[in-house]
Amino acid sequence: MEELQINTTEELLVKTAEALKIAQEAQAAVEQSLFTTNNLWILIAAAMVFIMHLGFSVLEAGFVRKKNVVNILFKNSMIIAIGLLTYWFVGFNLMYPGTNAGGFFGFSGFLLNPPEGGMTAAYADYTYWSDFIFQAMFAATGATIVSGAVAGRIKLNAFLIFATIFVAFIYPITGFWKWGAGWLDALGFYDFAGSTIVHSVGGWAALAGIILLGPRTGKYTEKGIKPIPGHSMPLAALGVFLLWFGWFGFNGGSVLSANPELVSLVFTTTSLAAAAGAIGSFIVSYAMFKTHDLSMVLNGILGGLVGITASADSVSVNSAIIIGLIAGVLIPLSVSFFDKMKLDDPVGATSVHLVCGIWGTLAVALFGNFDEGVGELTDQLIGIVACGSFVFILSFILFYILKLTIGIRVSADEEIKGLDIAEHKISAYS
Amino acid sequence: MEELQINTTEELLVKTAEALKIAQEAQAAVEQSLFTTNNLWILIAAAMVFIMHLGFSVLEAGFVRKKNVVNILFKNSMIIAIGLLTYWFVGFNLMYPGTNAGGFFGFSGFLLNPPEGGMTAAYADYTYWSDFIFQAMFAATGATIVSGAVAGRIKLNAFLIFATIFVAFIYPITGFWKWGAGWLDALGFYDFAGSTIVHSVGGWAALAGIILLGPRTGKYTEKGIKPIPGHSMPLAALGVFLLWFGWFGFNGGSVLSANPELVSLVFTTTSLAAAAGAIGSFIVSYAMFKTHDLSMVLNGILGGLVGITASADSVSVNSAIIIGLIAGVLIPLSVSFFDKMKLDDPVGATSVHLVCGIWGTLAVALFGNFDEGVGELTDQLIGIVACGSFVFILSFILFYILKLTIGIRVSADEEIKGLDIAEHKISAYS
Amino acid sequence: MEELQINTTEELLVKTAEALKIAQEAQAAVEQSLFTTNNLWILIAAAMVFIMHLGFSVLEAGFVRKKNVVNILFKNSMIIAIGLLTYWFVGFNLMYPGTNAGGFFGFSGFLLNPPEGGMTAAYADYTYWSDFIFQAMFAATGATIVSGAVAGRIKLNAFLIFATIFVAFIYPITGFWKWGAGWLDALGFYDFAGSTIVHSVGGWAALAGIILLGPRTGKYTEKGIKPIPGHSMPLAALGVFLLWFGWFGFNGGSVLSANPELVSLVFTTTSLAAAAGAIGSFIVSYAMFKTHDLSMVLNGILGGLVGITASADSVSVNSAIIIGLIAGVLIPLSVSFFDKMKLDDPVGATSVHLVCGIWGTLAVALFGNFDEGVGELTDQLIGIVACGSFVFILSFILFYILKLTIGIRVSADEEIKGLDIAEHKISAYS
Repeated sequence: MEELQINTTEELLVKTAEALKIAQEAQAAVEQSLFTTNNLWILIAAAMVFIMHLGFSVLEAGFVRKKNVVNILFKNSMIIAIGLLTYWFVGFNLMYPGTNAGGFFGFSGFLLNPPEGGMTAAYADYTYWSDFIFQAMFAATGATIVSGAVAGRIKLNAFLIFATIFVAFIYPITGFWKWGAGWLDALGFYDFAGSTIVHSVGGWAALAGIILLGPRTGKYTEKGIKPIPGHSMPLAALGVFLLWFGWFGFNGGSVLSANPELVSLVFTTTSLAAAAGAIGSFIVSYAMFKTHDLSMVLNGILGGLVGITASADSVSVNSAIIIGLIAGVLIPLSVSFFDKMKLDDPVGATSVHLVCGIWGTLAVALFGNFDEGVGELTDQLIGIVACGSFVFILSFILFYILKLTIGIRVSADEEIKGLDIAEHKISAYS
Repeated sequence: MEELQINTTEELLVKTAEALKIAQEAQAAVEQSLFTTNNLWILIAAAMVFIMHLGFSVLEAGFVRKKNVVNILFKNSMIIAIGLLTYWFVGFNLMYPGTNAGGFFGFSGFLLNPPEGGMTAAYADYTYWSDFIFQAMFAATGATIVSGAVAGRIKLNAFLIFATIFVAFIYPITGFWKWGAGWLDALGFYDFAGSTIVHSVGGWAALAGIILLGPRTGKYTEKGIKPIPGHSMPLAALGVFLLWFGWFGFNGGSVLSANPELVSLVFTTTSLAAAAGAIGSFIVSYAMFKTHDLSMVLNGILGGLVGITASADSVSVNSAIIIGLIAGVLIPLSVSFFDKMKLDDPVGATSVHLVCGIWGTLAVALFGNFDEGVGELTDQLIGIVACGSFVFILSFILFYILKLTIGIRVSADEEIKGLDIAEHKISAYS
Repeated sequence: MEELQINTTEELLVKTAEALKIAQEAQAAVEQSLFTTNNLWILIAAAMVFIMHLGFSVLEAGFVRKKNVVNILFKNSMIIAIGLLTYWFVGFNLMYPGTNAGGFFGFSGFLLNPPEGGMTAAYADYTYWSDFIFQAMFAATGATIVSGAVAGRIKLNAFLIFATIFVAFIYPITGFWKWGAGWLDALGFYDFAGSTIVHSVGGWAALAGIILLGPRTGKYTEKGIKPIPGHSMPLAALGVFLLWFGWFGFNGGSVLSANPELVSLVFTTTSLAAAAGAIGSFIVSYAMFKTHDLSMVLNGILGGLVGITASADSVSVNSAIIIGLIAGVLIPLSVSFFDKMKLDDPVGATSVHLVCGIWGTLAVALFGNFDEGVGELTDQLIGIVACGSFVFILSFILFYILKLTIGIRVSADEEIKGLDIAEHKISAYS
């Protein structure tokens, strides 16, 4: 250490004051520096979650028939627009009212109300706007899940009305129960990034729609189940890879900071669960169908991703592989089951998001490293049942009202012609 | 606070010196830490802007006919290569000469000249190379805008020559006027991320090309306007979603640091404007054409993005929604207008980039939160007119010279066969 | 500086102690802050490298015939799953055993063994999990390179067995030689991000497969070489742009921190080499074939990227352009050469990854800024030959054993029908 020249008491006082001031400034600056990094990660994660909307769009476009491609792209383009705007208008303040902790419902007013005295006042690791945009990107994903499941026969305007109400009200309310510090959170229910709060919630709404719509014409015949293959496997594969990429933001951003240990663990558990999901689905689908079924492998990847979403920050990587593997195994079983029940889901959204979402939420209790009172089996079951019944019943009622009023199913003629011509007067390819 | 054992005056001096030294080291280290984060964001943003080139490529590929797909992909692949290399060779030092502040033209020499004594000397928040690569990714986008507008009938070599001169000289010169601290900047003209400097500049060049080329054969007939639908709506949708993703880097990176408040505000305004653009275009196009027009919704998203680009850091989120909504409304009106004028633009680039670029630049004056002397209506109008007339006239002259010399339009026979066979001897699909 | 009120010696002691404590806290916090940024970059880079798997998938899907598309997508989906899981099971601890420095082989046990006492103990700039996931994303790329080269005639199960053994054992062992601090590293061999360790290694394995498989039926006829065009140029272009994007993570993440100078230099050299590769390949392919060949430009970009990979952190940007340009020039020459040798590579993987990988490794010696003893020509040649012969011989033996046992080539009938129907019982498009 170079020698400090201090000859008088006054100089000593000056130097002491200087050291104290510089130290305090550095301490403040380092907080700002870490805040900047944490905030940046939330924003990048939001952009990655945005990519999931592209992933869903092209995955669903790939899995539907050529005559319904414009329709599915139109729905998904509108969903992200509607989702962001309703979340701005009402959703964010329903989901994060900042009041009524432990309760069933809260609301802090229409439009956004950035805190006075600086946007960052209430947030430890990111700004108010980062919080909003990250959560807003999540909000529309539930409706996107429904979009695929009801493809090929739903009326466009009925779907858009349903999607608007779903993302504006239904999703934020159950979201509040857990992530807005509502009653499920108080109970000890654990759902890291939304196996239930996003995925099975979307899946339940999809199931309600599927039941009320009925299957596509020609799918379940007297001679048995007729597979209706998707029109473009490259689009389907593109969608799944983009979803996996987006999931790094979905799960990684749900750490809500750039905490190195947690985010890196989440990247690892998420990836290994996806990989194990592919293998699990591959093996079981090969055993069941004696073929190398690409769509099963792709949905196995998604199943593994949905499965790990509830616990990606709280399990070992070995457990993540088991969770993903079981999710993958569930995919072909579930697809067969829904087909046996004549519940027609063109993209397998109920198998991926509902079934694996439930599995992932239960897996928290089986594999999670928690203190007592968090993520226990009873809590997880209560969360699954509460969110499931609330969303399923409301969605069913909503679809039912639409069915009685404007109708939810296109005419047989329109279905045969395809929704692209019927609703949009153009074809996807020319 | 644990007690510090200080028994002698000498110990006190040592401790004081130690405190001062550690504090100073911490202060230097925290600057480096924040610099690292800011710089990282500029680089990630550059990578996201790169993705916009992919977005443009597939959007334009989707909107052209099957017989011109290889051609559009070839042009866009070459544009990014030419754009980066000309920016290295001459463009960067034309746009950011570091001299002639307030002027019309500056140039600091060919090739790159990283500052001596360390690459970071002249930059507060990022390195010389980060600055270069971020700006270089911007540079080629203008030519990409032209690429789509002149698709289906332009000669490949004429286009490549135009694009090279455009990105090497025309774009950097108007860029210098604002972002290089030239005369428009001194005037108070405000254009955050380039509604004018990038988008309408590209749009004016596109318009010059469209006028001199004339419409595609068969588009404007005696019986009226014949729509020529794009060959692949999935590619078009993929392109728009990728552009939206890239815009997080385009606008978010234009903050030129990872400043948490600003970057998160920009993400939010950008997204909400895009969403509102979709809705605005949807409503108006439905009213005009009585159909759910996917290409209008997609271009509405892009219109919203272009519209918010000039003011994404300087308006409230509510204003951003109004800006995006109006941009969306402008899209179907503008597309109809250009068609009435028989200005044939296969991808709607002039409506998206020129019209919404002008709108966004004006919106700065209407909605921006600025001190006096910045972003006032007169300044904005001067900027629009100055950049517009400079770029339009130069582009017109350049295209005209090319027309007189090597010709700019393929033969009628080649147009009918398609440019893929005519220029590349292969088809996009086989 | 505001005056500090210090009246007694006791107060002075308290203030000195306070300054020292705050300074020490700030110093610790700033280390954590920088660590968080560095770690975040490694994770984001890992996600970008993941996108390369998507890039390879759609590039290869685009370059094969319509009848083999599901097969190539299936292979690539399985490769990433198998790659991650084998790297978890054995690969990571083969490549980075943490022992046997300077040696030929090391292994620190099955499964992952995060260090006790905190995950970050052994790593300066990122966590154990970040290290694992970043390296794991690299691991499968080698097999992906093989996937494209052997497309259209290899048996699926033979390929999957080969790919599993390749990523589990062959890749990690040569990887250890350099990046695990093995004998090549001790020698002075330099390969920044893997022109040899990833790309030419994948290329050698591809070459072994190509030789043993033989060409696709109908490619080399008595009348000469019959080009077999890819089925979708948009998919091919999409793949190349996604690969370029991913390469920002591949090369940029290989800095192994967010070091501003190095990462920004790497972004710049990588991009300019890619651009120059496009130009080099364009000019030479135009001279050779008198057409504007999109696939040559696309492979020229990839060639430039592979070429710069060994030296992206250690050359000037001008050198990077020369390296990329030469790589681009090599592409059409190499494609012609392999065709003359009747080595049939449907996607040009050997030209891109093997030839340009070798070139890039040699370029280190020609252009790199190194101290003596690092990256010298002899060292580079030894590395190329050692990795090449090891990988080629092992891959050849492995493919040969598979050929003798389960067979590696589908029947002539299956080849004509296409692998999609033969192996997967579905078509890519319907």
